[in-house]
Amino acid sequence: MTAPGLVSLVGAGPGDPELLTRRALDRLGRADLILNDALVPDELVALAPQARRFYVGKRAGRHSIDQDGIHRLMIRAARRGDRVVRLKCGDPFVFGRGGEEALALQAAGVPFEIVPGVTSAIAGPALAGIPVTHRGLASGFVVVSGHAESAYAPILGSLAPAAATVVVLMGLTTRGALAGFLIARGWDAATPAAVVLGASHDGAATWTGRLDGLAAAALPPGELPGLLVIGAVAGLATTLAPALAATPVAAVAVP
Amino acid sequence: MTAPGLVSLVGAGPGDPELLTRRALDRLGRADLILNDALVPDELVALAPQARRFYVGKRAGRHSIDQDGIHRLMIRAARRGDRVVRLKCGDPFVFGRGGEEALALQAAGVPFEIVPGVTSAIAGPALAGIPVTHRGLASGFVVVSGHAESAYAPILGSLAPAAATVVVLMGLTTRGALAGFLIARGWDAATPAAVVLGASHDGAATWTGRLDGLAAAALPPGELPGLLVIGAVAGLATTLAPALAATPVAAVAVP
Repeated sequence: MTAPGLVSLVGAGPGDPELLTRRALDRLGRADLILNDALVPDELVALAPQARRFYVGKRAGRHSIDQDGIHRLMIRAARRGDRVVRLKCGDPFVFGRGGEEALALQAAGVPFEIVPGVTSAIAGPALAGIPVTHRGLASGFVVVSGHAESAYAPILGSLAPAAATVVVLMGLTTRGALAGFLIARGWDAATPAAVVLGASHDGAATWTGRLDGLAAAALPPGELPGLLVIGAVAGLATTLAPALAATPVAAVAVP
Repeated sequence: MTAPGLVSLVGAGPGDPELLTRRALDRLGRADLILNDALVPDELVALAPQARRFYVGKRAGRHSIDQDGIHRLMIRAARRGDRVVRLKCGDPFVFGRGGEEALALQAAGVPFEIVPGVTSAIAGPALAGIPVTHRGLASGFVVVSGHAESAYAPILGSLAPAAATVVVLMGLTTRGALAGFLIARGWDAATPAAVVLGASHDGAATWTGRLDGLAAAALPPGELPGLLVIGAVAGLATTLAPALAATPVAAVAVP
């Protein structure tokens, strides 16, 4: 009988391999099989050259495998004795279906662990010079998915205008509708807002402006992942982003 | 003339040294001076044996140095050419005064960078078996500070009951008042709730129950940092926490 393997639900962070945790790096180095999403950069998967790789993201808008298929694949591999890494962008429990995967593994009696990652919801704004909390500007923050109004309406529909920083993941294409939704509920059209594209990736870019300018924001073309930040803290990017950009991080990076 | 140094505002993660990022580890290894908060474990500071260390946390309820003093210290050291690491629990931009420090460094013309960390607000629940988002249970989450009602009232006072997972940092001692605040605003007293103590530290413990049981929750004695999770997702801990605890993470940890 083969000893049971282990499934690690691993957060890959926002993209930069330097923002992987030490535990994530360890698990990649020991993996027999990696299941990765669309947005995980190849550089990260390349940290596990010994592992088989199975891509479970979307191709041409369609999932290459459905969620139940991912569960079956992880369970079968772990029962065979494999070390499996389920590699997800950001943190596995922030819009990553990590909870569903954990429940499936628990139900199957397969050993598993959670390896939290640096979430793009906080690191994305931070690397663009935007702290999600700031004394006098925001005493808390809200993270929602912008993929459909039904996802954010229960939360943003009740929150008092400007009560908290709002971070929207998966909201690039719906940003105009989301901005309109907030303005219709009493948010000041002049509330600072930002679009953070490809945080920690090459080609990262930030747009800053007002809530009512989000819809028409001219963004560079491409396929970079992006998020929205809405609230007074977004105004700090104007001051902090140039200072951060002037710091030669590359010059002090790991050789 | 000395070349200017660099101040790195570094997130240390929730406590476990394995949840440091690779960049945080690199910056610790090159630091001349470390300024660390009260909750940063000694094990993390020990990763920079070459560095001078200045403790800037609270001693017996009083700050050993005020916020302006921290700014002056960082600026002076960087101007002398030092590599300074300002080491904060979790992420530097989540209730860490990181934004204020970044603005002070920018104003002084000192080169600085942000090194995002794994935030306890997400990793704490995750390691206790609680995903902050979960299909059908929570389509978003809110993070607030519980240290005073004035900090959370604007946010939690408007949010519709059960609209999102609520994560409360610095709310251990005020948990009864906060639970009462939510129930008075229409939250079901039977809403699942959890107290996560010392996530990723030795001696980590989780209490799970109902919102109206938070006040009287019997917690182990000690000084571990803690957070609250309120919402349907907290109920998943009952299923997931035993499975996570059964996984021999130590057996696969970095030797």
